[in-house]
Amino acid sequence: MTNGSSENKTGISRRDLLNVPAKGALLAGAAATIGGGGLALLGSSAPATAANGSYALEPGELDEYYGFWSSGQSGEVRILGVPSMRELMRIPVFNRCSATGWGSTNESKKILTEGMLPETKAFLASHGLETYQNGDLHHPHMSFTDGTYDGRFLFMNDKANTRVARIRCDVMKCDKIIEIPNASDIHGLRPQKFPRTGYVFANGEHRIPLPNDGKILDDPEQYVSIFTAIDGDEMSISWQVIVSGNLDNCDADYQGKYAFSTSYNSEEGVNLAEMTESETDHVVIFNIARIEAAVAAGEYETYNGIPVLDGRKGSPLTVYVSIPNSPHGCNTAPDGKHIVINGKLSPTVSIIDVDKVAALFDGADPQSCIVAEPELGLGPLHTAFDGEGNGYTTLFLDSQMVKWNIDAAIRQHNGETVDPILSKVDVHYQPGHNHSSMGETKEADGKWLVSLNKFSKDRFINVGPLKPENEQLIDISGDAPVVVHDGPTFAEPHDCIIVHRSKVNPVSVWSRDDPTWEEARQQAAADGVDLEFGADEPIRDGNKVRVYMTSVAPVFSLEKFTVKQGDEVTVYVTNMDDIDDLTHGFTMGNHGIAFEIGPQATASATFIAGRPGVHWFYCQWFCHALHMEMRGRMLVEPRAS
Amino acid sequence: MTNGSSENKTGISRRDLLNVPAKGALLAGAAATIGGGGLALLGSSAPATAANGSYALEPGELDEYYGFWSSGQSGEVRILGVPSMRELMRIPVFNRCSATGWGSTNESKKILTEGMLPETKAFLASHGLETYQNGDLHHPHMSFTDGTYDGRFLFMNDKANTRVARIRCDVMKCDKIIEIPNASDIHGLRPQKFPRTGYVFANGEHRIPLPNDGKILDDPEQYVSIFTAIDGDEMSISWQVIVSGNLDNCDADYQGKYAFSTSYNSEEGVNLAEMTESETDHVVIFNIARIEAAVAAGEYETYNGIPVLDGRKGSPLTVYVSIPNSPHGCNTAPDGKHIVINGKLSPTVSIIDVDKVAALFDGADPQSCIVAEPELGLGPLHTAFDGEGNGYTTLFLDSQMVKWNIDAAIRQHNGETVDPILSKVDVHYQPGHNHSSMGETKEADGKWLVSLNKFSKDRFINVGPLKPENEQLIDISGDAPVVVHDGPTFAEPHDCIIVHRSKVNPVSVWSRDDPTWEEARQQAAADGVDLEFGADEPIRDGNKVRVYMTSVAPVFSLEKFTVKQGDEVTVYVTNMDDIDDLTHGFTMGNHGIAFEIGPQATASATFIAGRPGVHWFYCQWFCHALHMEMRGRMLVEPRAS
Repeated sequence: MTNGSSENKTGISRRDLLNVPAKGALLAGAAATIGGGGLALLGSSAPATAANGSYALEPGELDEYYGFWSSGQSGEVRILGVPSMRELMRIPVFNRCSATGWGSTNESKKILTEGMLPETKAFLASHGLETYQNGDLHHPHMSFTDGTYDGRFLFMNDKANTRVARIRCDVMKCDKIIEIPNASDIHGLRPQKFPRTGYVFANGEHRIPLPNDGKILDDPEQYVSIFTAIDGDEMSISWQVIVSGNLDNCDADYQGKYAFSTSYNSEEGVNLAEMTESETDHVVIFNIARIEAAVAAGEYETYNGIPVLDGRKGSPLTVYVSIPNSPHGCNTAPDGKHIVINGKLSPTVSIIDVDKVAALFDGADPQSCIVAEPELGLGPLHTAFDGEGNGYTTLFLDSQMVKWNIDAAIRQHNGETVDPILSKVDVHYQPGHNHSSMGETKEADGKWLVSLNKFSKDRFINVGPLKPENEQLIDISGDAPVVVHDGPTFAEPHDCIIVHRSKVNPVSVWSRDDPTWEEARQQAAADGVDLEFGADEPIRDGNKVRVYMTSVAPVFSLEKFTVKQGDEVTVYVTNMDDIDDLTHGFTMGNHGIAFEIGPQATASATFIAGRPGVHWFYCQWFCHALHMEMRGRMLVEPRAS
Repeated sequence: MTNGSSENKTGISRRDLLNVPAKGALLAGAAATIGGGGLALLGSSAPATAANGSYALEPGELDEYYGFWSSGQSGEVRILGVPSMRELMRIPVFNRCSATGWGSTNESKKILTEGMLPETKAFLASHGLETYQNGDLHHPHMSFTDGTYDGRFLFMNDKANTRVARIRCDVMKCDKIIEIPNASDIHGLRPQKFPRTGYVFANGEHRIPLPNDGKILDDPEQYVSIFTAIDGDEMSISWQVIVSGNLDNCDADYQGKYAFSTSYNSEEGVNLAEMTESETDHVVIFNIARIEAAVAAGEYETYNGIPVLDGRKGSPLTVYVSIPNSPHGCNTAPDGKHIVINGKLSPTVSIIDVDKVAALFDGADPQSCIVAEPELGLGPLHTAFDGEGNGYTTLFLDSQMVKWNIDAAIRQHNGETVDPILSKVDVHYQPGHNHSSMGETKEADGKWLVSLNKFSKDRFINVGPLKPENEQLIDISGDAPVVVHDGPTFAEPHDCIIVHRSKVNPVSVWSRDDPTWEEARQQAAADGVDLEFGADEPIRDGNKVRVYMTSVAPVFSLEKFTVKQGDEVTVYVTNMDDIDDLTHGFTMGNHGIAFEIGPQATASATFIAGRPGVHWFYCQWFCHALHMEMRGRMLVEPRAS
C-alpha cells in the first residue's frame, strides 16, 4: 500500500478495539515503534482523490509557498518550496557551516557570541572554542502583525544550549542569537500574534535550581522551570516567570492578552516514572497585562539582570488548567477563539475558549475554559487548521492524521450525539509536528498540510542504520486528506510553517550599507581603505595583518600577499559583482578557512599564518568558466629561527 | 518556457553565429552569467517527450538508483534517490555536523585526526582546534571491481584542506580521512576501474614548492603539482608523481594500465592572464606499470615518507598530449576504449583511443592517440555516457547539454561529412559536472542524466542573495534528452554518481563488533564495564571520569550521575534498541555536546564539566511517545573555593 486512507467512523475507537490503555502500552516499551499505520482492522474506504492537483511542478514552475523548516538537531533552518517539497536553502543558525563559513567568519562569530553569557564564554574557552558547535532547533515561527505573517523575521529556539535566534527575511540570514539565562533548554517558542511581534515567548523545558550555581544539586523540589518573554525587535529579554511543573510547547492568542504553555511534568519528577505518574497535567495561561503591571510595580527578583516573577500556582499572573495526560502540542486556531491542547498520553485534545479565560483570572474555575475534549486516537501531539473550522491532529502511536471539526467537538461536549471525527489518513510513520498552509495565522487557507514523521523505516531505499525521516505532503483541499508525497529528510524535520509567497520579499543583492559587516566597515575606515577597492598591500599593525580585497568574476583584486609566520591575518573580501546569484567564496587552502560572499556583500575571517610557505586561496563558489583560475597566493615568510 | 529543447543541427555553431571567440568572451568579464540558455536564435523543435515515465514517485514507491552527491564546499556527501531526486541522507565527512556529532564525538575525532600530518595538528592547535571545520568535497566515486561498482566504498577529495576520505557503504559513514602531503589542494579524484580499486588517483591542483617550508616563496618556476596514488583498501599513499603544468580532473581506464589527468595551466602561471595565455594545454597520461617498476627500483625521492617520482615532460613514466584550450573534465567512456577530454575554453572535446596509448610510451607522437576532436559548443566541461555510443557534454557558456555520437565524431575526424551532434537541450543554468545512470561503469544503462547547474537565478522562488543551485534530471532514454525535473540544492551539487540499487546493500542495524568504537570497547574492558549494560556509577581516574550508559526507548540506563567541576568527563552511550530506524541521540544541555547513536551502536564524547550545577542530558532523536521524558541529570559539584 503506497498511499492509504482509512476512516474511523464506526464509533469504536481504535483504543477501545485494541483494549490497550495508551499509557500502559507506552510504558511497556516498544509500543511507539509498532504503530506503523494501516492496521487493517478498521473499515478502509477507497483512497480519496487529491484536489489541489499535483505537488510535482514542471521544470521552472514556481512554488506557491515558502516552507520554513526547523532541522532539529542539525541546528539550521531550511527553506522548502511547497507544494514541490524541494529544499531551496539551508540557513545556518546554531550549527557550523562549511560552505558559508558560519561560525568561522568574524561577522558570524559576532552574532554567535554577542548574546552569550559570560559564564558560557568562559566554559567554551576551556575547550578552546569561541562558540557552540551545535544546536537543537525545534520551532521556527515568523513575526506577526495583526494576526498574520508580516515577512520581517523568523524566530527559533535552541533546546540544546538554551538559546533563541532570529533570521532576517530580507536576506534570509541569522542576525541575532541570545542565550536565555536562568532557564534550561528552551523548547516551545511562539511569537505574539497581536497586535504584532512584539514578544517572542520561550519555554524553559527542564527544571533546574535558580540560580544554578551548584549550591543546590540533587534536590528536585527546589528546581524550577522558567517562561521567558523576549522583545522580538530588540532581541532582549523583557521578563521571566517561574512556573509550577515544567514547560513544553506554547502558543499565543489572537487578542494579545495571553500565552499558553503545556506541561507534561506537573509532577515535577526527575525520571520517567515520576514524570508520568499523574493522570493529569496542565496548561499554564500567562496574563500578559498583569505580568507587565507586576514588572512595572517592581514585583520581581532579578537574576542575571532579568526581572523574574513568581507565577507558580496561586499567583495572580497565571492560571493552571488541568489537562489529561502529559499534554504536548499547543495550537491556537485561526478562528481566533480556540486553543487546542494535545493530550499525548491521553487520546484526547482539550479545547480552550479564549473568551472564557478572563474570568479565570477573576476566580472562575480554571476548568470552565475547556469547551470540548474530543477523543481522537492514540498519541495526539499537534493540531493544524484549515481555516474552515477543522483541526488536523497528528496521532503519534496510530501513525495517522485525524481530521475533525471543532464545532462538532464542542457540540458533542455539550451532549449532542455527534462524532467530531471526519476522517483519518495513515502517515508513515509516527508523526510529530504538522502544519497547514498559513495555518497558524488568521489567513489559514486549507490547501496543504505537512506531516513531519519521525520514522521512515521502509519508505525509501535503504541508506544504512541512520534512516531519513519523512515529511509527507497532504492535500487537504478536498473532503478527506490525501497523502500526495513522501519527502525524506535528514535529522530532523522537527517543525515547520508554510507561508504564502506574497508574504516574503527577499532581496537578491546585498545593500552596501548593510549592518552585517559594520565592524569591517569601521576597521577599513580606520585603515584608510575603501572596502570596495581593497588595498594593494596588507596593512600591518604589530603582528596583526589586515588584507583587503575585492572579487569580480573571475578574479580577486590581489593575486598574492605576503605575511610573516605567526601573524594574525584578517582577510576582508568584498564581492563587487552585483548580478543576481553571483556569489563568490574565499577559501584559504590548508588553513580551515572558507566563507561565502554574496553579491555586494563584505565578509571576513581571521586566522594565524602558522604555516610557512606558499598557500593558495581560491573561490569555492562556482562563478564563471574561469572559476578554477580564480585564485591567488598567500606567501608566508618563515619565522627567523 | 518551463522546459525547452533547442536543437542545433544547422551546421552553424552558436559560436560562429555570435562571432564571439570563447576565450575572448570569457576574459571580457560577465560572459559566464549571460548564457542563460534558450537563446531563440536557432531553430527550436517541439519539445521531446520523456520516455522513462515520470520522475515523480507515488508515496511509498522506491527509487531505482542511489545518487551519491558531493556537496562541494558543504564538505559532506549526500545520498539522493534517483529518479525522484529526493535527498535521502547527509553523510558528514569534512564538515562539522550538529546532528550526528561528527567532529565532536571521540569516534569521529579519531577518523578526522589519525590521518593528519603533524604540522597540521600543530597548526590547528594554535587555533584551539583538533580538526578542520570545513572541506570542499568535489568528487565522490565508488570502488570498482572489474569495471563496475562493487558497493564497498565511496572515495572523495577535499580541495580546501588537501585530503581524501572514504565512506563505508555498509553503514554509509566515513571511516577514513587522510591528508595528502607534498601536494596542494586535491581536486580531481577517481578510483581504478580494473581489475579493482585498488588505487584511488588524486590530483594536487595547485603548484607549490616541494617541500613547502617557506624557503621558496615567490618563485613559481620552482613550484610543482603532484599526482597521488592511494591504496583504497589501506587508505595509505602508495606513490606520488611530479608533473609539468598543473592537475585538474582525472580518470582511469578499463584496462588498469593508465590514469589520465587534465591540466588547464600548462603555462605554470600564477595569475589569470598567465594561466590562460596558451591556446593549448594538455592531458598527462600516467603509465601505472612503469611507475610501479620505478618505485620498486627505488627511482624516487622521499618526501614526508612518500616515494615521489619525477614525471615531468621527458619522463618515461608519463606522456603529455596537447589539448586545446584549458581542458577541464576527463571522462572514460563505457566502451572501455575512449577517453573524452573536455576543452572548456575550446568548443571541442578531444577523444583519446586507449588502444593507441601504449605506442606513445614507445615513442609515437603523443597526438596520435587523439582520434576525434568534435566541436560541440561553448564551454564543454564534462561528458557523461549512455552505453550506446553517445556522449552528453555540459556546455557551461551555452547553458546546454549536447548529445553527440562518439563513432560519428571519429568518422568526421577521419574526413567523413557527418555531424556528430544529435541534439541539444537547454539547462538552467551554467552546467558543471553531469552524470548518467551507471555511466562511469561498463554497465552504463542510458536511462537518466543529471546536470549539475551552478546558477539557478529565476528557477525557484527567491530565497535571498544566496540562491540554490540546480540539479536537473534529464530523461535520456529516448532519442532526444528531456529535462524532467529542476532540483534546487544548497551549495553545491558539485559532482555525483548514479548507482543502481542492486549494487548497494547497507545494513539497518550496527554489528556490536563494529571497529568504529574499538577504543570505547577497550576502555570499557579496562574499566571492567560491559558496554551493553553500562555502569551504575561514573568511573573515576584522577580528574578523568567515564560514564557508561545504555539507551532503550524511552530511557537511558542512568537517570543521573555526579561529577566534580573541572572533571574531564567521557560519556559512552550504547543503543541497545535493535529495531530498524530506532536511532537515539545524546545531548548534554549547555555543554555543546550532541551525538547520534544508531541501533546497536556505541558512541562517546568527552568534555570538561566546567559548569557547577544541574545539567540535563536528553535524547534528541525522536524515538518514542515518551521521547521528551528520555532525559537525566548531570550534577556538577562546585570546585571548593
